[in-house]
Amino acid sequence: MSSKNNNLDIPENAKISQEIVKLLDEKDPLATQADKFKLPKDLIYLDGNSLGAMPKSVPSYVEDALLDGWSTQLIRSWNNKGWHNLPFTLADRLAPIMGAKKGEVLLVDSTSLNLFKTLVAALKMRADRVNIISDKTNFPSDIHIIQGVLDNFFPDKKLKLSGSSDEETISLIDSKTAVVTLTHVDYKTGKIRDMQKITKAAHDNGALIIWDLSHSVGALPIDLNHCEVDFAVGCSYKYLNGGHGAPAYLFVAQRHLEESQNTLTGWMGHASPFGFDINYEPSKTIEKFRCGTPAILSYLALEKSLDIFETIDFGQLRKKSQNLTQLFMQLIEENCSDYGIKIITPRDPEIRGSQVSVTNENSWEIMQALIEHNVVGDFRAPNIMRFGFTPLYTSYENVWNAVKILQKILDTGIWKEEKYATRKLVT
Amino acid sequence: MSSKNNNLDIPENAKISQEIVKLLDEKDPLATQADKFKLPKDLIYLDGNSLGAMPKSVPSYVEDALLDGWSTQLIRSWNNKGWHNLPFTLADRLAPIMGAKKGEVLLVDSTSLNLFKTLVAALKMRADRVNIISDKTNFPSDIHIIQGVLDNFFPDKKLKLSGSSDEETISLIDSKTAVVTLTHVDYKTGKIRDMQKITKAAHDNGALIIWDLSHSVGALPIDLNHCEVDFAVGCSYKYLNGGHGAPAYLFVAQRHLEESQNTLTGWMGHASPFGFDINYEPSKTIEKFRCGTPAILSYLALEKSLDIFETIDFGQLRKKSQNLTQLFMQLIEENCSDYGIKIITPRDPEIRGSQVSVTNENSWEIMQALIEHNVVGDFRAPNIMRFGFTPLYTSYENVWNAVKILQKILDTGIWKEEKYATRKLVT
Repeated sequence: MSSKNNNLDIPENAKISQEIVKLLDEKDPLATQADKFKLPKDLIYLDGNSLGAMPKSVPSYVEDALLDGWSTQLIRSWNNKGWHNLPFTLADRLAPIMGAKKGEVLLVDSTSLNLFKTLVAALKMRADRVNIISDKTNFPSDIHIIQGVLDNFFPDKKLKLSGSSDEETISLIDSKTAVVTLTHVDYKTGKIRDMQKITKAAHDNGALIIWDLSHSVGALPIDLNHCEVDFAVGCSYKYLNGGHGAPAYLFVAQRHLEESQNTLTGWMGHASPFGFDINYEPSKTIEKFRCGTPAILSYLALEKSLDIFETIDFGQLRKKSQNLTQLFMQLIEENCSDYGIKIITPRDPEIRGSQVSVTNENSWEIMQALIEHNVVGDFRAPNIMRFGFTPLYTSYENVWNAVKILQKILDTGIWKEEKYATRKLVT
Repeated sequence: MSSKNNNLDIPENAKISQEIVKLLDEKDPLATQADKFKLPKDLIYLDGNSLGAMPKSVPSYVEDALLDGWSTQLIRSWNNKGWHNLPFTLADRLAPIMGAKKGEVLLVDSTSLNLFKTLVAALKMRADRVNIISDKTNFPSDIHIIQGVLDNFFPDKKLKLSGSSDEETISLIDSKTAVVTLTHVDYKTGKIRDMQKITKAAHDNGALIIWDLSHSVGALPIDLNHCEVDFAVGCSYKYLNGGHGAPAYLFVAQRHLEESQNTLTGWMGHASPFGFDINYEPSKTIEKFRCGTPAILSYLALEKSLDIFETIDFGQLRKKSQNLTQLFMQLIEENCSDYGIKIITPRDPEIRGSQVSVTNENSWEIMQALIEHNVVGDFRAPNIMRFGFTPLYTSYENVWNAVKILQKILDTGIWKEEKYATRKLVT
């Protein structure tokens, strides 16, 4: 994939007009990709960082799976439709998007379970070392998994948490460090960690690293092998558009494939699961990190998303992502700064993921009003509004209109209406 | 549910005629249930013990999930369509089928992962004891999970394996036993273990028990609380008709809910997952055994199957299951005994699950020929043909015709054709 830039850059301090925005859409080499997704016509969807949009080809593909697969071929679908192999055949298609080789990626289970698997594997590979390094701003589930692993299975080891700066994290890494595990793009702020630098710091100290790429893969170019990453995990229902609870992935660098062991030793990780031998013999391939039977329908939705990603120039994707987020930030500042909306996402496009987060003491209510006015972002405790910008189906005009609606909500103060105060379960 | 018997019994030693078989179908109170499933018209499907048939209502329900849910409501589907809660709302509907109360069952992950979770929880509740008891004929994945748990996390504990007799298993249970874990209905032979007796033996010795109900729930009445079972796990893609890789379940008796802890501590098991606190505080409910984000499409297919099960009299279901399996065995003996087909499933209907297994040195080839002739059972190494009899969509005439086709394959010897010798991946 080339990374030539066909996008217009946005002048840093210029006043943005709707005409400039329309011109950006006209010149956008990715503009036609939006046709491949099914979204409500009147909705501005800025939450693809939480749950990606549905590729239009999913319903007919799933229907075929139900009618030709499940209800016609039944048990034979495992073979005849290649379903038994989806955890690695689809992963082999996903691998290039993260700079991995075929055979290094597996699509299975959830991100949390894959972190458990890779963390325990890595700890066993550095059994003589005592510390795990992470940071306080890591996604809570990642911290929970680390805590659970330590409390229950490695009580002699310790978790040390840095702040969110690369330097502070690196300063904690030393000869006692077994594993460093971080999320690459911060779920709250959208800040990108320096994968290459931190990975090198871990290796310089003899430690292993696990990156959580949940907010990275599908949103920006990732090159795990160039950075010599040891392990990685992540989910496929955000920028990868796999649908609600689509299978997560894990990456194991080829050089660790022999030594690393999966401790969740279910039959699907067996070298010969259908030999039904009661003695566990792990597969020699990445399939050793399988455990139980895969939930097929969710794989099929993800497959249709990969059809799209395989046609995408990730240089173009990244440039558009940077432009969309920059445009949003400039428009917010121009139009909403009187209302205490504070941007917490990095201004430097090189360390900014594909989202913009802002704080406000009334973020919950403002976000609910936005959603009711057809701009869907999300809320993260205690006071953050997140807006995700997915280059495949978000236009520059979407950004313009979203800010106009936000501005109106703030100008009129309608977010103060009582109905916007009710808290819901999942946000 | 009453267990009144509206079925005809089959005379034990009478010669069965096609007329008797037709009469059985005419009098079958469950005969109309088959209309609720979509199966190829010319197929005799005797593999519902491996992968259940699709309820006809699944495709439109999944289509609604894709069109109204994913592509229209997007992230909001987690709340608006109740998807975030499916692991326990659907489980509450499943609970009565296994004699559990609401709040004791959770639908998540795979059977193997759920066995890991419950086994580790149980071992921590009996930390001063050293042995796990299982049997050599347990499903291999269950044994693999036990071995993995012991090798990796409890190296001071030991696995002791009995043979398949209840008495032999009970004889291994003593004051050193921490946990007994067995599969209730044997996947190879269809033999039913005495749940009440073995559970009592475990408790009499101060041990805990975990039952794997993968070949039980949906096939026969189960009463976990009557038997005072501690934990149970199982899959929903066999007799429960949830589709390929549908979510598995776990059961935790209410009395253990506070003490038992999930060591796979992902965010969905947190008391307040969307509070995003980095300190793990487990849910006080069965949800503590959640880990990552659930794969929604597979839950929805299962939901449609539960719609059907909630209308079923399990006494009728069990009686028909016993009749179908008895009919098959009698017809096999009358028509196929010259060919070295040996029944390994118990004759006593009280200890027979909803399958019949036979051995033959050419089981692989004969099963492939059967499948090509539209009778789908499956093969289990080294020499077993399995035939599952699912009372909801299998008729007595199906059984009659299946045996006629088997008889013809044996009489003509066409199973010797070379094409039937090729081994496939999943069987």
